[in-house]
Amino acid sequence: MNIIDGGATSAKGFKAACTAAGIKYKDRTDMAMLVSEAPCVTAGTFTRNLVKAAPVLWDRAIVESGSEARAVVINAGIANACTGEEGFEACRLSAEAVQEICGFTPDQVFVASTGVIGAKLPVDRITAGITAMAPALDPSREAGHNAARAIMTTDTLPKEACVTIEIGGKIVTIGGMCKGSGMIHPNMGTMLCFITTDAAISKALLQKALSETVEETYNMVSVDGDTSTNDTCLVLANGLAGNDPIQEENEAYAAFKEGLMEVNRTLAMKIAGDGEGATALFEVIVEHAPSKEDAKVLSKSVVTSSLSKAAVYGHDANCGRFLCALGYSGVNFDPNLVDMYFVSEHGKLKVAQDGVILAYSEEKAAEIMTTEHFTVLCDMKQGEATATAWGCDLTHEYVTINADYRS
Amino acid sequence: MNIIDGGATSAKGFKAACTAAGIKYKDRTDMAMLVSEAPCVTAGTFTRNLVKAAPVLWDRAIVESGSEARAVVINAGIANACTGEEGFEACRLSAEAVQEICGFTPDQVFVASTGVIGAKLPVDRITAGITAMAPALDPSREAGHNAARAIMTTDTLPKEACVTIEIGGKIVTIGGMCKGSGMIHPNMGTMLCFITTDAAISKALLQKALSETVEETYNMVSVDGDTSTNDTCLVLANGLAGNDPIQEENEAYAAFKEGLMEVNRTLAMKIAGDGEGATALFEVIVEHAPSKEDAKVLSKSVVTSSLSKAAVYGHDANCGRFLCALGYSGVNFDPNLVDMYFVSEHGKLKVAQDGVILAYSEEKAAEIMTTEHFTVLCDMKQGEATATAWGCDLTHEYVTINADYRS
Repeated sequence: MNIIDGGATSAKGFKAACTAAGIKYKDRTDMAMLVSEAPCVTAGTFTRNLVKAAPVLWDRAIVESGSEARAVVINAGIANACTGEEGFEACRLSAEAVQEICGFTPDQVFVASTGVIGAKLPVDRITAGITAMAPALDPSREAGHNAARAIMTTDTLPKEACVTIEIGGKIVTIGGMCKGSGMIHPNMGTMLCFITTDAAISKALLQKALSETVEETYNMVSVDGDTSTNDTCLVLANGLAGNDPIQEENEAYAAFKEGLMEVNRTLAMKIAGDGEGATALFEVIVEHAPSKEDAKVLSKSVVTSSLSKAAVYGHDANCGRFLCALGYSGVNFDPNLVDMYFVSEHGKLKVAQDGVILAYSEEKAAEIMTTEHFTVLCDMKQGEATATAWGCDLTHEYVTINADYRS
Repeated sequence: MNIIDGGATSAKGFKAACTAAGIKYKDRTDMAMLVSEAPCVTAGTFTRNLVKAAPVLWDRAIVESGSEARAVVINAGIANACTGEEGFEACRLSAEAVQEICGFTPDQVFVASTGVIGAKLPVDRITAGITAMAPALDPSREAGHNAARAIMTTDTLPKEACVTIEIGGKIVTIGGMCKGSGMIHPNMGTMLCFITTDAAISKALLQKALSETVEETYNMVSVDGDTSTNDTCLVLANGLAGNDPIQEENEAYAAFKEGLMEVNRTLAMKIAGDGEGATALFEVIVEHAPSKEDAKVLSKSVVTSSLSKAAVYGHDANCGRFLCALGYSGVNFDPNLVDMYFVSEHGKLKVAQDGVILAYSEEKAAEIMTTEHFTVLCDMKQGEATATAWGCDLTHEYVTINADYRS
């Protein structure tokens, strides 16, 4: 596997465009469009929130129908959630606008929205945006990058990732872009991910690879069930790499899944590190837990604790907060076995042994915490399972952003 | 039932004292002591966190043993949690210090601590504090009030409540004090509550009344399982009111439980409204839910959502966040039935109908939200159950407090 500089236009046959459609923001692009030259096998994972935005219902129907997709249209600024039947109708009108210009049928067109809940989508501006983007579709690296920028909301950086793998002598590319930033408290920081690949792969295996890698990547940034009304992750595979189609769980499937895992892990860590107002990526590794599920719940419990996040922000080596968050996770374990370490590029320090907090150097601990990537390592010493969760620190800026998100 | 100005010394036979023992803070009192003239029947509820502080283990053993208590010794500043066997030994030494001066056996002496996790309790200062407090024990209103002040950590106000009820012609008093303020994210804002009453009541019924009222009051401020290492709620009943002992679930028990509910509800709302950095009490009422358990989970899901709390702080009528928090609560319901209202002393405004956000007046909504007690009312329209949860807004000050709690 090679990690390369790339994004949603890196795989063969994919083009992108973006435009400033004036959906909500001024003086910036806020719509993007992806199109594939060839029909695509698709897979998707969607929010588990009972309150599902209209685009989620639209896209899920396409993935479930098995129709071969050709395009994705995305807007930032308005989420088209809690908008009732009118919101769903806006999805249809958007897809029909693509049909009119590009000739794809509406069931070949995904739509995705992120932004304020409750506001109505201005369909005329969406349609005008599509009319502007269609002639500008472009397979260049730059076009992919600009699309990644156009779908941002409170994100401070565009988020892209790309790898190439070799399957039976053919180079297969997997690339993608995503947005998502309200991840300190992940319930509503809509995550939209769009992965494109030229791999030839069956729909069933594409969905399996996606579902399994999402579990280890994006779902380790978010808490189970604590998902936005709009969360969407789509993969489009157009087969233009020319590899022998992946039809069973063989070596080629393993290579593809490994590539997809790398792309998804990279994007997930970028989302965590770019959490609203964040100054640091906060990583929690749980080792030697009784089971994989336990390890996941334990690591997420620490990474989502507001008090732990605030301590990371303040470089305050208040390791009792991390131990406490393990304790209330709901996992049954013996707290009197747990060792804990603080880790960063500045070193590794043991802060607790057998559940008792050590008399460690506060200075050394603060030094380790002064970093853009801080890791708490919890050695449970009661099993063999490991999991990693990602989050970020909780800052004044987070409160500022969210006390008036809509202004 | 009469609500009166009172606290932990209002019931007959209870005295209090406090002192500046220099546990952690300077220039303030940080230890308190409660003593009953007569032996007390006891009841208690304790943290469900697997990581339990030493005083929790000590007190739980006393409640379970059935021994009749005489005293409670409390310190603020250090939690005596994650301190291993040495921490438990510190509890024993504290109780023995009380024995030496007051003559009670150690199993008649509760101890409670709140503050930083991991630091060792300075037993010499605790002992000196007890020596200073014992001769100053006083049944006055002021002594109770000063004790409530001495047990504060980041609390901005002391928290007391008191009622009297009549049982068979006798006046029974139920009073109490508590501390707790880290309640925006309730996992670690240690809640300590001490209720004193002169009621004569059996141990079994005292525990039953406590457990049931805690469920509807303090547990509706905190999320199930998300409890600190130190959370403790104790009731001491010395029987000096002279009522016929309450031995069965009759009218007298109902009156006692109603009084205890009132005291606990008042203290719980004071804890929520005094959340770290809070500017407002944030109340969420869920009506017409399928079941009581559903109503509780739904109301807590909204009241603990960081994005909802930040919106309350910013007076930002972003009602999609509240709907979203219902949706990810884990409760199964039909989102297309839900109506939502914003309520305060400035009025009541319908913001969503049948799951769709209405085109309400932003100005009116902001006016309603500019208050010290803001309520979101969720009418699920799919059952008969109701629950109320309490929290507070999420502010810059919260981050400031918790980014360096220990300084």
